[in-house]
Amino acid sequence: MYEGVLQELIDEFGRLPGIGPKSAQRIAFHIIQTESYDPSKLAELLNTVRASVSFCSVCGNITQDPECTICRDPRRRRDQICVVEEAKDIVALERTREFSGLYHVLGGAISPIDGIGPDQLRIAPLLERLRDTTVTEIILATDPNVEGEATATYLARLIQPLGLTVSRLASGLPVGGDLEYADEITLGRALEGRTRVTPA
Amino acid sequence: MYEGVLQELIDEFGRLPGIGPKSAQRIAFHIIQTESYDPSKLAELLNTVRASVSFCSVCGNITQDPECTICRDPRRRRDQICVVEEAKDIVALERTREFSGLYHVLGGAISPIDGIGPDQLRIAPLLERLRDTTVTEIILATDPNVEGEATATYLARLIQPLGLTVSRLASGLPVGGDLEYADEITLGRALEGRTRVTPA
Repeated sequence: MYEGVLQELIDEFGRLPGIGPKSAQRIAFHIIQTESYDPSKLAELLNTVRASVSFCSVCGNITQDPECTICRDPRRRRDQICVVEEAKDIVALERTREFSGLYHVLGGAISPIDGIGPDQLRIAPLLERLRDTTVTEIILATDPNVEGEATATYLARLIQPLGLTVSRLASGLPVGGDLEYADEITLGRALEGRTRVTPA
Repeated sequence: MYEGVLQELIDEFGRLPGIGPKSAQRIAFHIIQTESYDPSKLAELLNTVRASVSFCSVCGNITQDPECTICRDPRRRRDQICVVEEAKDIVALERTREFSGLYHVLGGAISPIDGIGPDQLRIAPLLERLRDTTVTEIILATDPNVEGEATATYLARLIQPLGLTVSRLASGLPVGGDLEYADEITLGRALEGRTRVTPA
């Protein structure tokens, strides 16, 4: 619809996830028309980010060094490993400030429909880490969906025989949510996983 | 939350309109992790787009040449000028294939709250174009909101004394819409602008 370079810019933005044609157009016009905005910064980052970002040799987290900041941090307890699907999940868990152990990124979840079996995930490096006897608990923090549950079940069967404590994130009602609008599976899980109220 | 360059990339995407922190994170991960995606194309466009895109010296449309493709097109009728707020509006109108005249981009609408008065808009160049007596009709296609209506009223008062036909885009029910869900102002306009049904 537009001439030359402008349309190319709109098309390139439209190729990014979550950006539709209208948003791409809005962004492109912003770049052209907003004097205070400097597009060269983003251009430079796009050219350099891949070369400067790599994956932690221990846990698979995203890092600019051979080992990520969490694996190198001497204050983290080394007896707990929290297993997640993606590096993004580490950031979400870190935001809670409730976990001070280490992580392990699988790189996805078991999903036969997408052709992803256990061999495509970083399960062998996880078992390798478990040879170190300082680890006593594995927290399975895969997503609470079909693929995540399948992956958690698979890992639990694999790890429990090693004599480690294996735990799974609790399922239940989201905090601030409304019981009336909770789906029946979540509400069922909340009932199943109910915790006893102790007298104060 | 992330290390170095990755966080910078997320921040830069977050500065674009309509991209929140979550979307910015998703896009940044896509760029890092999708092997088939080449970010250098977008980087190059970001570096070149501003220098290669400029505004048509006649109508103010976005173009890579001194005059835009519409102004140069000998098949367009030169007796009608459609006045729009932004260059994007031209694309929307062109998509209808209902208009074969020329355009004039104001560069915004009168909005005292944002400090935009008539002097900040491309109204003088419009009046300059009207000196050419081939122009017989001005179609005011500013947005159907407070600012757009104010701008249309202002322009109508300015142009009508020149003896030109001044028209405004119709307001009414959107096609495919539902009368029940139309707001009262739109429905009022639809009633006001009702058209007579002639027997077939």
